[in-house]
Amino acid sequence: MDIVHIAPPWISIPPKNYGGTEIVLYNLIEEQIAQGHTVTLLAPGDASTSARLVSFLPQALIEEGVPWYAHLQAFYHLYRSVEYISGQSFDIAHLHLSSASDMYLLPLTQHLHLPHVMTLHSCFPFDRAGSWMGDGDKYYAHWLKTMPMVSISHQARKEALPDLDFLDVVHHGLPMHLFTPTVKRPDSYVAWLGRFVPEKGPHLAIKAARRAGVPLVLAGIVDHNVPNAVRYFQEQIEPEIDGEQIRYIGPVNHEQKVDLLSRARAFLNPITWEEPFGMVMIEAMALGCPVITFSRGAAPEVVRHGRSGFLVKDVDEMVACIERIEEFERATVRAHVEGHFSVQAMAEKYTHVYRRVIATHVRTRWSRAHAPSTLVPFPLTTTLPLRRDDLASAAHPPSVHFPTAETEVEPTP
Amino acid sequence: MDIVHIAPPWISIPPKNYGGTEIVLYNLIEEQIAQGHTVTLLAPGDASTSARLVSFLPQALIEEGVPWYAHLQAFYHLYRSVEYISGQSFDIAHLHLSSASDMYLLPLTQHLHLPHVMTLHSCFPFDRAGSWMGDGDKYYAHWLKTMPMVSISHQARKEALPDLDFLDVVHHGLPMHLFTPTVKRPDSYVAWLGRFVPEKGPHLAIKAARRAGVPLVLAGIVDHNVPNAVRYFQEQIEPEIDGEQIRYIGPVNHEQKVDLLSRARAFLNPITWEEPFGMVMIEAMALGCPVITFSRGAAPEVVRHGRSGFLVKDVDEMVACIERIEEFERATVRAHVEGHFSVQAMAEKYTHVYRRVIATHVRTRWSRAHAPSTLVPFPLTTTLPLRRDDLASAAHPPSVHFPTAETEVEPTP
Repeated sequence: MDIVHIAPPWISIPPKNYGGTEIVLYNLIEEQIAQGHTVTLLAPGDASTSARLVSFLPQALIEEGVPWYAHLQAFYHLYRSVEYISGQSFDIAHLHLSSASDMYLLPLTQHLHLPHVMTLHSCFPFDRAGSWMGDGDKYYAHWLKTMPMVSISHQARKEALPDLDFLDVVHHGLPMHLFTPTVKRPDSYVAWLGRFVPEKGPHLAIKAARRAGVPLVLAGIVDHNVPNAVRYFQEQIEPEIDGEQIRYIGPVNHEQKVDLLSRARAFLNPITWEEPFGMVMIEAMALGCPVITFSRGAAPEVVRHGRSGFLVKDVDEMVACIERIEEFERATVRAHVEGHFSVQAMAEKYTHVYRRVIATHVRTRWSRAHAPSTLVPFPLTTTLPLRRDDLASAAHPPSVHFPTAETEVEPTP
Repeated sequence: MDIVHIAPPWISIPPKNYGGTEIVLYNLIEEQIAQGHTVTLLAPGDASTSARLVSFLPQALIEEGVPWYAHLQAFYHLYRSVEYISGQSFDIAHLHLSSASDMYLLPLTQHLHLPHVMTLHSCFPFDRAGSWMGDGDKYYAHWLKTMPMVSISHQARKEALPDLDFLDVVHHGLPMHLFTPTVKRPDSYVAWLGRFVPEKGPHLAIKAARRAGVPLVLAGIVDHNVPNAVRYFQEQIEPEIDGEQIRYIGPVNHEQKVDLLSRARAFLNPITWEEPFGMVMIEAMALGCPVITFSRGAAPEVVRHGRSGFLVKDVDEMVACIERIEEFERATVRAHVEGHFSVQAMAEKYTHVYRRVIATHVRTRWSRAHAPSTLVPFPLTTTLPLRRDDLASAAHPPSVHFPTAETEVEPTP
């Protein structure tokens, strides 16, 4: 298949530090090429990829110091990308909805002649900027509803706007060969790894480790562009770090992450929000490290309770489970990821989704070619022309179909 | 003429408080209708206008509490507006470039079949968000250069990106009948009116008034969404207000403004930036109130030195001129505005610009209809086909024409 991906322009591919969508996209593309597909990636010029790279910006925007809410450059990347693929004959265009600016893709692709599909990588609402949150997503609902979508979990699908056209759930997958355990037997510590924000719960991991009397190693980044994240780290995490029971080792690269999780007795995931996936859980399990997670968000889809980790409801249960962690066979924990969350499986599922999108696209065009070009009212019944009217307005909905969004006011005399 | 305006979606038309672009647009439209044109306004639903109003948002975004840097709703308004006019047969579409989000209009209208023109209402760079400033304007330069533009002053044109297609300068104009002096002879005070920001210089107006020993009345708004503006007001203005020599009367409505300026001996305009116009100067002069302004930005285009006010270089000169203010005939000051800055003159100039845009549009289409549909290389010389190639690429520039903006990297083996 000849596949084109339009990447979000903010974070480098693969990400230099944290970037869930970008690491998934990087792995997906490498695996698609390994499976024999031809892949074009539309992304800023600092991307590393085996795909053909077409860039309209020299560098990922975060690397350029552009704040998330300044959209002019992001829009330029997206606009030029859609314009570019409109002139080409790819089999399928894969779009990615990850942050606010990606919403522009919805109107921009509404008349795209290529079959296309969009993965929902994060959560509604997308009409956000800093700590402000608006209700502008509703204006994009019409375009969203006609966009074939994939969600990254059943949870993500459940939390999305209603009536979206979800074709399938495709869980994230890992390149297993890059996640080989570095040790046979783990050390005594438990681990937490992520961006330091309250909803990922590092303060609760500290609480659980202290109560269970086990060492905890924290790793990951503090986003210095987000004042609340800095304050949270300074107030709730830093004072707890004693360098003995509670250690913080800073951001980790891939090798350090693999070693950290290989040697951890357990990974603690006390999330306080409905996280749509939770990449770090499958990374830990791939390395044989069982996960003890609050049973929220996509955690019940990702962790098999009693086999690859524990689903718990609070810190108390987490503490009790830390004590039972030796029950797990580390090879079994890894096998759970191999069976369900490999990058091979992810790429194959996407190929399957692409085939369905292409088939629908071709069949729709096919039917249109055989449809009468003008509406000839059928003389004996009003049913047929009315039905055809319905079809016509479904294809090109008149603007008055938007409830409350459009008002047309006659001139005041 | 059948005219359509796409308004920026942020501030109500006419503005409830401050909004330079929106008051000009409101007045222009009313006058265009008075001059017999048919006008459609695409703007949020809270606009008051004699035009036919088509709205995709119920209310101006600032009224909804949307911050300037959250663009999803603004983009929706602009996208739907362009989509709407694309299906209609207006004689001319008038676009307005006032803040960052209006830049989206440039790519969105690049294939618009209607003749269109854009007024540059404020200053580059538009790639701004809060106090952050980026260099993203360069990505829009290609579209900007093919957009027929009008500037609101020679100053604004001088400060714009190079190589833009400026057709004309159209100064703002006032509805003179709404600016009738309320008194025959002014009071003893001088006035300052505007948004309280350092670049508009109210702190310098205070300094000048104190040194000249005259009372000063300050009026206008403090933008509580801009922390720097609040700090500036609290630190540099508020401590100076004594209720006697220096008074602050808060924001003023139209009637209050007319009375304030009618009764002022002079209007002080100690701007510290290259202001592209300076609406309040023509409002003051329309009411017979001479303007003493720093000779920066568009001030030398707006104020006729010695006839409608004084152009000065600093506070010292301003103080000296306050003492000479009785030299002016207030009727002469008003006549200067009547002659050069009436809304009639503005609307007529725009009609003239529209005619030129329409003529160019029709002639271009005309030439294209007579051009050979395929390129037939001329056998005896290479000059002709090469020239035709140049023309073809000028009309649809290939993406490689963007310096540094696009890189196409071949797959790494």
